[in-house]
Amino acid sequence: MKPLSSLGLKYDGKKLWALDQTLLPFEEKWVICETPEEMISMIKELKVRGAPLIGVAAALSLALFAEKGATGAEISKAALALKNARPTAVNLAAAIDRMTVSPRLTETAEEIFEEDVRLCLQIAEHGFGLIKDGDSILTHCNAGGLATAGIGTAVGVIRHAHDKGKRIHVFVDETRPLLQGARLTAWELARAGIPHTLICDNMAASLMAQKKIQLAIVGADRIAKNGDFANKIGTYGVAVLCHHHRIPFYTAAPMTTVDSRCHSGREIPIEQRREHEVKGFHGREQIQWANPSSPVDNPAFDVTPHELLSGIVLDTGVKRAPFYF
Amino acid sequence: MKPLSSLGLKYDGKKLWALDQTLLPFEEKWVICETPEEMISMIKELKVRGAPLIGVAAALSLALFAEKGATGAEISKAALALKNARPTAVNLAAAIDRMTVSPRLTETAEEIFEEDVRLCLQIAEHGFGLIKDGDSILTHCNAGGLATAGIGTAVGVIRHAHDKGKRIHVFVDETRPLLQGARLTAWELARAGIPHTLICDNMAASLMAQKKIQLAIVGADRIAKNGDFANKIGTYGVAVLCHHHRIPFYTAAPMTTVDSRCHSGREIPIEQRREHEVKGFHGREQIQWANPSSPVDNPAFDVTPHELLSGIVLDTGVKRAPFYF
Repeated sequence: MKPLSSLGLKYDGKKLWALDQTLLPFEEKWVICETPEEMISMIKELKVRGAPLIGVAAALSLALFAEKGATGAEISKAALALKNARPTAVNLAAAIDRMTVSPRLTETAEEIFEEDVRLCLQIAEHGFGLIKDGDSILTHCNAGGLATAGIGTAVGVIRHAHDKGKRIHVFVDETRPLLQGARLTAWELARAGIPHTLICDNMAASLMAQKKIQLAIVGADRIAKNGDFANKIGTYGVAVLCHHHRIPFYTAAPMTTVDSRCHSGREIPIEQRREHEVKGFHGREQIQWANPSSPVDNPAFDVTPHELLSGIVLDTGVKRAPFYF
Repeated sequence: MKPLSSLGLKYDGKKLWALDQTLLPFEEKWVICETPEEMISMIKELKVRGAPLIGVAAALSLALFAEKGATGAEISKAALALKNARPTAVNLAAAIDRMTVSPRLTETAEEIFEEDVRLCLQIAEHGFGLIKDGDSILTHCNAGGLATAGIGTAVGVIRHAHDKGKRIHVFVDETRPLLQGARLTAWELARAGIPHTLICDNMAASLMAQKKIQLAIVGADRIAKNGDFANKIGTYGVAVLCHHHRIPFYTAAPMTTVDSRCHSGREIPIEQRREHEVKGFHGREQIQWANPSSPVDNPAFDVTPHELLSGIVLDTGVKRAPFYF
């Protein structure tokens, strides 16, 4: 496989490396992923995360496994395990499905990587017209360069508008429980020199009431055929708040995020994660603050119905209602 | 002054003690508050918190200062400093105003304490009819026994319904950034044996969409004459979500929370707190997870307009629209 490199994943011609995203923003630690098994652990522990990126990472990992001489049966088994590493994002399953029907794993993996870079750029170009000079934009979680092989989806749109000279400000939801906004999106925006303000998730409503937010844009983990989509927990609440305040609300994703087997949001499986994530924070350092005996709910995603969407920013253009794919 | 005792404040006949609420739920550390100055620090650092409780605590502190022989000038100065310890909750200013016009500080402080206990019970009784057997109830922040001299306001209503045999379940918003829900409300509910589930603030919307929440009830730091009210940041978002999902939304507070000098929510001052609260968590242990160079917004409260209220549960009864006080 040829050398490939993104903000959170690289193949240097010998080894596959992934940036441990749980240690950001304080430590940029790159970890070698020798085997699909190691990549599965990285994905399950959210060291490698972001719907498009986990698809790309799984494909590269599988291709390198084949290059090292794994048998057909071993590859099939690894493919299935990779596919099951996380249930909600469709990109992972789609990438693995594409690999398993391909006779040329290396070329297909390279293609998946490079295609994701290109899709991000196309999304950013199509989203450009949605952002007005002077806008303050709310985003949730991290749909940036760390979540894709390219410049990101939602953050890619923001970044492209900034690079082309639009004066914008970004409000970054911290995104409990795993704080991808505070740790990753804020880090990416600071690196790119994009003006931004970090807020707790529950502060966005009050900013909207004060007319301090003109647009919200988020990523997507899976889009159903009717336009309903799953994304990081909290996205649905942002959509409802935007609806109430008449603020345009968009999701940005490549066409590969559309699951043609999924008719509506009700069919999207929602990953439940462990309770320690809600009871405290576990990153470079660990802390628990919650009452130990209290039970916890911890869905990693929620579903936003298409009625709340102003549009979907795709690599093929901005899709408006009716959303039927 | 006679001995007085609540969940977070006590006078043992000799000294005034406050439970350091920043160390809960892991450590129950009672701190002696010898002087108004010490009480001001406790209030500013949120070791003593909750709109009704800080009013009661300030009054007791001032009465004891007088008992120790402080001069009139010293008492006036301390009263002003106590009043300015936190700007948003009206109960603090109201309690101090009442003390400063009273010739009998000890009796007035005792009265303020005992009145708060009684008001909580009356609120709980009036709120009883709002809760149906089998309801799941969302609450935000801590409007419980730790926030008052009595059984609490919003949590008092919940607790009373549970004690009287209604089968209820409470969803507890963790309440970023200071996590009063995760640390304090969850602790109180667990102690009282009330079934509950801790969630991140951004999970409530999804629970509502799944019809898992039948009612929301929160406290209030200040109620304007038109029914607009200030409460912990995030309350307004809960109100909007309830409105969207047609879920009844109530605030519970004593009449002493109504500020007759404040005509609408626009006149309520909103305390801005320091950025480290949003960038991490500082309690018994300290942690910072956010990107260090990113700016932060940190309003401690937001304002909910009266249009979103199903009613205000007062010690005098449940007030419905029109809310004009």
